Amino acid sequence: MATPAFQFTTKATIATFGGTLLKLTHESAVLGCPMAINVFFPPGAFGRSTPKVPVLWYLAGLTCSGDNGAEKGFFNYWAAKYGIAVVYPDTSPRSSNHPGEHDAYDFGSAAGFYLDATKEPWAQNYKMETYITSELPAALYSYFIVLDNSRVSLMGHSMGGHGALTLFFKHPGKYKSTSAFAPIVNPSKCPWGQKAFSGYLASKQEWAKHDATELIKAYSGADLDIFISCGLSDENLIGGQLLIDNFVAAAKEAGRDRQVTVKYAPDYDHSYYYVSSLAQEHVEHAAKHLGVL
Amino acid sequence: MATPAFQFTTKATIATFGGTLLKLTHESAVLGCPMAINVFFPPGAFGRSTPKVPVLWYLAGLTCSGDNGAEKGFFNYWAAKYGIAVVYPDTSPRSSNHPGEHDAYDFGSAAGFYLDATKEPWAQNYKMETYITSELPAALYSYFIVLDNSRVSLMGHSMGGHGALTLFFKHPGKYKSTSAFAPIVNPSKCPWGQKAFSGYLASKQEWAKHDATELIKAYSGADLDIFISCGLSDENLIGGQLLIDNFVAAAKEAGRDRQVTVKYAPDYDHSYYYVSSLAQEHVEHAAKHLGVL
Repeated sequence: MATPAFQFTTKATIATFGGTLLKLTHESAVLGCPMAINVFFPPGAFGRSTPKVPVLWYLAGLTCSGDNGAEKGFFNYWAAKYGIAVVYPDTSPRSSNHPGEHDAYDFGSAAGFYLDATKEPWAQNYKMETYITSELPAALYSYFIVLDNSRVSLMGHSMGGHGALTLFFKHPGKYKSTSAFAPIVNPSKCPWGQKAFSGYLASKQEWAKHDATELIKAYSGADLDIFISCGLSDENLIGGQLLIDNFVAAAKEAGRDRQVTVKYAPDYDHSYYYVSSLAQEHVEHAAKHLGVL
Repeated sequence: MATPAFQFTTKATIATFGGTLLKLTHESAVLGCPMAINVFFPPGAFGRSTPKVPVLWYLAGLTCSGDNGAEKGFFNYWAAKYGIAVVYPDTSPRSSNHPGEHDAYDFGSAAGFYLDATKEPWAQNYKMETYITSELPAALYSYFIVLDNSRVSLMGHSMGGHGALTLFFKHPGKYKSTSAFAPIVNPSKCPWGQKAFSGYLASKQEWAKHDATELIKAYSGADLDIFISCGLSDENLIGGQLLIDNFVAAAKEAGRDRQVTVKYAPDYDHSYYYVSSLAQEHVEHAAKHLGVL
């Protein structure tokens, strides 16, 4: 991997749960604009080089930035307990000024869908897959050498759950595990996904490459251990945006039904009141695969 | 206590940490406007009448509403564990339209300072003390009979820490305990307090009645067990808005220095990253006095 193209500017250093949360900004060459991220270092890790700590990425959903999970997810409490760093990136470029970029909550800014766009003008810089899987981690792991680039996991919520699943499948070996809160698992078949894929992708032939339900069928890697949770009062589950049953059916078709655990939690909705309530289970799922539980 | 003047409208019923958070609105006769509050019921309590559960009020700080603590405080996690209900009221009337009401972050809306104003036009309806200690609890405890009005504690942050301390002293016997995160303890001597007291109170002679540092000197009740925490990187501690030393000196002068515990926590700032980090200790302080720990 080449030397990272950017350095980080520290906007704030915040103590929380015995660890340290950094609010960072940087210029992204891939996205062509300034970006903000948050990184939580567990107790004792910030400012040190060893022992290295494993890294858990939290990919947020529509309308969110890196702040939502950091402030409302209560991941830092559990990450502090297990000695895990948590990276909270943003959900899209923010200042490209493509026509309509800021007009809708479910397309453009805060709705990058964790893919590299192929349709103009988005193809110019809506490259969240490259940013999240390559540019940003390369820069982070070389800048903060306490972060262990050999022990990295993913989790995400809603659109970020789509990201956590698809990036895991598309980059075999890069991540130790993935889990998802109320994920969009079959975007080719739901309104949010169809709008995003139509807008970002030049051809419908590309859709399957970014759809977790298609990707698990094509996946040829070793046995999986994917954890998905969803509230049974989730308005987007009920409204047909998540389609978790389709992913479960695809896992079964692929002979991987025992490699996917779906926990439906009674009463929970789609908000951070639900995410924070299930945070312990998701962090512990990652902790197990990262070798700290 | 008279029959409450209002009923509640439930805007949302949200599952969180195994319990239920209600988002409620009501018309307040005391404040002369509609108000929003959040109430967390621990697992099993919502919709029941017995066994009754103790109640912990969280009073928020400047710029906040009842949402900040509910979303970012991490209190519901600990309250669920100990079987405590948490009430998150707002910090002021919101729609009185007094001149300048919405012009400053530290006076008027979201800055009611938990007192009954005596200076016009605020005296008309900025009566947060009567609202928090009388009107709202009377309505809540008769509407939700699972809430145990004989086991009630207070806690608060910043301006809300001022509220939690002063309302405790001013209403002996009403609360089992109080605790405060980074409280404004000597408002007569700090810029925020002086601005608020000058604006809300008709005469400077009234200031001492609303100042925790004066109130502890005058308090004649039984032994206290007050818990205060504050981050050592708290910008408002450093900036002279909190003046916690003055409260400690007053406690000593009153022979109550062993009845006040101040925990200075290295590195923490004034934000909810700090509040959530100390939430466990504050909820457990209340839990002890509420008989559930």
